[in-house]
Amino acid sequence: MSSTVQELNRTGKGEGQPVGVALLGFGTVGAEVFRLLTEHADDYTHRIGGPVEVRGIAVSDLAKQRPGVPEELLTDDARALIARDDVDLVVEVIGGIDYPRELVLDALNAGKSVVTANKALVAAHADGLAEAADAAGVDLYYEAAVAAAIPVVGMLRRSLAGDHIQRISGIVNGTTNFILDAMESTGATYDDALAEATRLGYAEADPTADVEGHDAASKAAIMASLGFYTRVNFEDVYCEGISNVTSEDIAAANQAGYTIKLLAICERLTREDGTEAVNARVHPTLVPKEHPLATVSESYNAIFVEAEAAGSLMFYGNGAGGYPTASAVVGDIVGASRNIVYGGRAPEDNTYAKLPIADAGEALTCYHIDMQVDERTGVLAAISSEFAKQGVSLRTVRQEGSEEDARLIVVTHTARESALREIVNTLTSLDVVKEVNSVLRLDS
Amino acid sequence: MSSTVQELNRTGKGEGQPVGVALLGFGTVGAEVFRLLTEHADDYTHRIGGPVEVRGIAVSDLAKQRPGVPEELLTDDARALIARDDVDLVVEVIGGIDYPRELVLDALNAGKSVVTANKALVAAHADGLAEAADAAGVDLYYEAAVAAAIPVVGMLRRSLAGDHIQRISGIVNGTTNFILDAMESTGATYDDALAEATRLGYAEADPTADVEGHDAASKAAIMASLGFYTRVNFEDVYCEGISNVTSEDIAAANQAGYTIKLLAICERLTREDGTEAVNARVHPTLVPKEHPLATVSESYNAIFVEAEAAGSLMFYGNGAGGYPTASAVVGDIVGASRNIVYGGRAPEDNTYAKLPIADAGEALTCYHIDMQVDERTGVLAAISSEFAKQGVSLRTVRQEGSEEDARLIVVTHTARESALREIVNTLTSLDVVKEVNSVLRLDS
Repeated sequence: MSSTVQELNRTGKGEGQPVGVALLGFGTVGAEVFRLLTEHADDYTHRIGGPVEVRGIAVSDLAKQRPGVPEELLTDDARALIARDDVDLVVEVIGGIDYPRELVLDALNAGKSVVTANKALVAAHADGLAEAADAAGVDLYYEAAVAAAIPVVGMLRRSLAGDHIQRISGIVNGTTNFILDAMESTGATYDDALAEATRLGYAEADPTADVEGHDAASKAAIMASLGFYTRVNFEDVYCEGISNVTSEDIAAANQAGYTIKLLAICERLTREDGTEAVNARVHPTLVPKEHPLATVSESYNAIFVEAEAAGSLMFYGNGAGGYPTASAVVGDIVGASRNIVYGGRAPEDNTYAKLPIADAGEALTCYHIDMQVDERTGVLAAISSEFAKQGVSLRTVRQEGSEEDARLIVVTHTARESALREIVNTLTSLDVVKEVNSVLRLDS
Repeated sequence: MSSTVQELNRTGKGEGQPVGVALLGFGTVGAEVFRLLTEHADDYTHRIGGPVEVRGIAVSDLAKQRPGVPEELLTDDARALIARDDVDLVVEVIGGIDYPRELVLDALNAGKSVVTANKALVAAHADGLAEAADAAGVDLYYEAAVAAAIPVVGMLRRSLAGDHIQRISGIVNGTTNFILDAMESTGATYDDALAEATRLGYAEADPTADVEGHDAASKAAIMASLGFYTRVNFEDVYCEGISNVTSEDIAAANQAGYTIKLLAICERLTREDGTEAVNARVHPTLVPKEHPLATVSESYNAIFVEAEAAGSLMFYGNGAGGYPTASAVVGDIVGASRNIVYGGRAPEDNTYAKLPIADAGEALTCYHIDMQVDERTGVLAAISSEFAKQGVSLRTVRQEGSEEDARLIVVTHTARESALREIVNTLTSLDVVKEVNSVLRLDS
């Protein structure tokens, strides 16, 4: 990176100068970004201090009809488009990881700011991307990567920069929330609810990334990194999806006053030696019905933040879809463009705190264990002694069913995940326990 | 303003350089800001790129005991503190309008960035302050002025900068929400609920600014200005408080499926000639119980934003109090300090759209009119013909009570405020209407 480019990034191109944009990708999001940039061009010129000019749109299939898009803007050579001298800002809305990563690195290395909506890319390669942006002194914006237009990234990066965040929890995947909500409200099985989600376009043909929690885990990694100023990557996030959640689980949760949500949870932990670590995890979670997150229905997203001075904050909205995602992308385009015109940089991905990443077993949680047991005297004593051995106390114990088919539902107080797992392992081997039906965590 | 100062603001003091802060005011918010800056000093140094150093704290009473505050920091000469060469950033948390306005202008004119939590000041004098900040090329931050740590200002200024906002509505005053919530949940009268709010510290000794809606109107002015890129001042906001809301109103609302909230509403209106205008207003409003704003209880705040691409977003949290306000103030200190260290400016108060401010009568709303009427044949015909004359159609009509004491509750469809007012005027003069008990607006 030459010092002249760095110098220019510091001082800006100057008021009234155009910002040349390369748009990579023209799917639902790309098309809506282009529409907004075109229809509200005058507004953005005023908001930025100079006009945004789309220099080109990189697509994979040039032959496809794209009504309303000037043909001369289309190219299938993304690299050449990025390299153009009159491109200042590269907007990546392709999706995937490896190919967009190469393009984004190309752009940053060439001293161009980048806006991306790509959560998988950011969660997998944040360090490399942040280093390239720093070396070039340019901006890397990705508000759309978490919960679309709900401004989670801006809130963690800027608004709460004066506070000390303790915990971020949220519903950050609309597909799984739709499925769980449908199971709860209609009594549908998981398979039927998934089929309905697919039919309505909420789930993709291959729903794995959503239902197994990978998409939420990417977002958890990004939120934890920003909130705790510590790099948390996708593989640092413990992840359980919803494909094992049954109608019976939901009915039992309901009866006990809970609703089941797939939560992404990022929190500071105090380790046994008194030092701090970061834990990030995604799993189906029993949320008390009176908690604000319990009321988030259909495909909506919501993020709940607990901070030392601010207390509890919640942000709610449409966390996916072409329009809300485009809103966040264009918001980033305006922010990055202002810096290109006037100079200055957005707060970078700052990981100064470098907290260690806790093992999944270190997480503090409560278990809700549903099992079939013998209806024999001493069953409860045998089971509760296993909890006591691990120093875990019980919050509630409910027994129901007939003599032949007794069911015991145990909810623990807060304990380390590792101790709880060990208890479950032991329970399955006890003679008096016929079967452990389900193990779910409870938001404490 | 010398060009050297402007140049410095553009390029910044450089990484590692300290940011000198003058803290004006040491009440609840000031003390908490000082505590955060002291306790988390290392964090802010990392987040900013250089240390924040408090050069002095201006107070009115030097003799007052302030444990934990180094005596040499205290001064009763705010002007001299602001003028110090080693002060880069002035933080105003005094409150009031005229005196802090002079100090803030002093600071801006001297080329120093300003962070203020003062909604009354910003809503009354935004133009003058923005001009002074622009002339000096420095930042004016005021996130804490609206709903404390709920990042409304940042969201409107930055996150939604790529979108086209249609409407902002919200509960932005905790005192009145506490009172209305207490009236609804306990059946208390307005006076009793106000007394309870005062006892618990939610209402001030003189509650006028809160209960008459002035505080909410200041926030509405700020939100409308930011959301519509148009200067909206305090006096442009139509304002009705909650002091006339009765237990009967709340009971009637409840019965019809509504809860009464004091809403600040900012919206784009299409005028009869097809052009756009901005309307901002504060009044008690019937909100359907299933609307997210209806569930905001006690002294919490929530802001609901509707934008073209993002759809509906809601932000919820503690909208007042020393801690949450300090969180927002220190977040602004970090943002302004980054610009002081690295150069660049935050998006300024941009009012390029210069939309006209609509008359209060142009607002589109629905009325909920509760009146005592004669139990005579033809009453309903007489009354409904008044609505028809103004082209207003009725959504629901409910009649109850005895022959001697009949009550008629009418809910209209959406219509211009001016037409609705004229109807109410006419109704009061009709023979068949004994008394109009209450007129409340409904969030359409």
